[in-house]
Amino acid sequence: MTPGRPVPPPLARPLPPAAAALGSDRLAAAYGATSGHSGLVPLTVARRAPKADDVEIAIEFCGLCHSDVHATRGEWGTQHYPLVPGHEIVGRVSAVGSAVDDFAPGDLVGVGCMVDSCRECRSCLDGQEQYCENGLTGTYGAKDQRNGGAITQGGYSTSVVVDRRYVLRVPENLDPAAVAPLLCAGVTTFSPLRHFGVKEGDTVGVVGLGGLGHMAVKLAKAMGARVVVFTTSESKVPAALELGADEVVLSRDAEAMEAADRSIDAIIDTVAAPHDLNPFFRTLRRDGALYQLGLPSEAMPPVNPGALIRRRISYTGSLIGGIAETQEMLDFCAAHNVVADIELVRADQLNEAYDRMVAGDVKYRFVLDTSTLQAAAEEADA
Amino acid sequence: MTPGRPVPPPLARPLPPAAAALGSDRLAAAYGATSGHSGLVPLTVARRAPKADDVEIAIEFCGLCHSDVHATRGEWGTQHYPLVPGHEIVGRVSAVGSAVDDFAPGDLVGVGCMVDSCRECRSCLDGQEQYCENGLTGTYGAKDQRNGGAITQGGYSTSVVVDRRYVLRVPENLDPAAVAPLLCAGVTTFSPLRHFGVKEGDTVGVVGLGGLGHMAVKLAKAMGARVVVFTTSESKVPAALELGADEVVLSRDAEAMEAADRSIDAIIDTVAAPHDLNPFFRTLRRDGALYQLGLPSEAMPPVNPGALIRRRISYTGSLIGGIAETQEMLDFCAAHNVVADIELVRADQLNEAYDRMVAGDVKYRFVLDTSTLQAAAEEADA
Repeated sequence: MTPGRPVPPPLARPLPPAAAALGSDRLAAAYGATSGHSGLVPLTVARRAPKADDVEIAIEFCGLCHSDVHATRGEWGTQHYPLVPGHEIVGRVSAVGSAVDDFAPGDLVGVGCMVDSCRECRSCLDGQEQYCENGLTGTYGAKDQRNGGAITQGGYSTSVVVDRRYVLRVPENLDPAAVAPLLCAGVTTFSPLRHFGVKEGDTVGVVGLGGLGHMAVKLAKAMGARVVVFTTSESKVPAALELGADEVVLSRDAEAMEAADRSIDAIIDTVAAPHDLNPFFRTLRRDGALYQLGLPSEAMPPVNPGALIRRRISYTGSLIGGIAETQEMLDFCAAHNVVADIELVRADQLNEAYDRMVAGDVKYRFVLDTSTLQAAAEEADA
Repeated sequence: MTPGRPVPPPLARPLPPAAAALGSDRLAAAYGATSGHSGLVPLTVARRAPKADDVEIAIEFCGLCHSDVHATRGEWGTQHYPLVPGHEIVGRVSAVGSAVDDFAPGDLVGVGCMVDSCRECRSCLDGQEQYCENGLTGTYGAKDQRNGGAITQGGYSTSVVVDRRYVLRVPENLDPAAVAPLLCAGVTTFSPLRHFGVKEGDTVGVVGLGGLGHMAVKLAKAMGARVVVFTTSESKVPAALELGADEVVLSRDAEAMEAADRSIDAIIDTVAAPHDLNPFFRTLRRDGALYQLGLPSEAMPPVNPGALIRRRISYTGSLIGGIAETQEMLDFCAAHNVVADIELVRADQLNEAYDRMVAGDVKYRFVLDTSTLQAAAEEADA
């Protein structure tokens, strides 16, 4: 290790920068995967110099989402490696392009799951960019059409450059580390709660109590709802009550499920493993809805349409949220003092954190302190 | 056969009248099942004398619904026999109770799938009596709590007595025989179209082209939608176009289904046999909905939640419609000159008609001419 060596260090596997931007690229320290089996290793990532509409962000925190694990391990199909994950980004603006007048250096900002979309389709024009009909540009691992087709690299990094249209304002009154998970886990649960129109006096069910589930509990409570948590593990009951749940139902207890018959208006289902939804449909009132947020890799058990017909129940899904809605969520959280429950990790703890996420051993979201990236990189390089 | 014999004839199996109403019961000619294997046979049915809120109706026409077949054959669990089916009733008021001032003798009226509900639950108070949380009282085969627990008997009969709250006004400008199926098939498809908010310029998909499907096509067209019919049988293409469909897609043709990707706003699925919904979800646009109306007796193939999540698609169901909505549907049909395509049958053709319904050999709804009940009964009794 060479003390005083300038940033960034010459790491083992620098990412190939997009050819077009090469002349003015800036390098950033990062952590990412070089293959599906590499685990996360120190990397250097090239960031384009801000174009007219770009905002350059000095990343302070980045949440660890379960999708990061799937993506870096290649469990969701072919990936471009090296791959720097991370789409729950909070940091401060370090530079802006010539056409940017809504952000200025020093502003606290965030970036979520997307950094671009077609801006032309019905969904984009409706402010529902997450459903972009030409495919949104993910914050990592996606082809960035407007930037020479470079593969986007995410937030386990010291900086990122993003078009101003996909940058969010982060309220200054919240802990920025605990805000990071709001950019994915927060908006992913906020959006269906809003879509349903949850209001004071409604009862919201939350299935599963992980990163998404714990946000659903907090947000639904902040909206004035009564919250019932459904869980398979008795051990999660105290934690659910501590988070604010009014009631916890053990979903494998047929009698308890029966007792919950027609007591819920909307269910936020965060479980990404196959599970039988029919007992949950029966807990819904007329015109109730179950929003499935996780996509299991194996088939779900069949749905019995009887419950859907007899109570006009809707089985639906929801994907993150639009940009305007993400901002609305951040402002809502600022007004209601809602953040994620987090455990801050250093860069050299990322692989262990991934293993703990897979084991479900986290309350409720890991957040990377990006100030540790440089030190970890130097350590690895020594 | 005894010419000139007074009505009603002394038939083989008169229905046991509700004890409470016995003194003033009026007898009506009817056709019904005496067991799951009897087929339909002539019967005499006791109708209560109108109470204060009752409307007595001289039935002119009654549609034959597929549920009638299931119910009379005992395919939907235990039934009370004898059972007179029929819940698509059109006739003229013959008498009213002392508290009835909204109907008068001679009025053309209708009765659909329910003749009572609790009138107290949230659904009833919302005018969604079809979802009555204490259970609606079906027009036939149901325990009539407000009338001594008598089993309700349906519209394959010369008369019926129904509380005014469950009696509809039938517009005089439509063919009353062709109006009958609107009371079930009509409102069952109208309600989800309205629930979705189908409007001019929307595209509506209709899966299956039977009694319900053909009404869905007509109603969606009348609402200004473009209509795409999905069918498995090439032979139904001309009929679908004739009904007004703008396009017909053979749902077993994977390429044709692929070409329909993201082209539909709402799907009315009328098929009551297990079928894979995933190819249909893919034809829906963002925020689209598939309404399943038929309840298969066997399990449906699993739903892939991916489509629901990626486009916020809703898989839902719908059950007939509320009373106010049924009236709205009848008025809508009067304004748009919409009725069912029917084949009128005599009482002595009912069993054959049932077999033809099971074989799918009807365009698109059989309607019983109740003026033939008496003659058929006398014939059978001779």
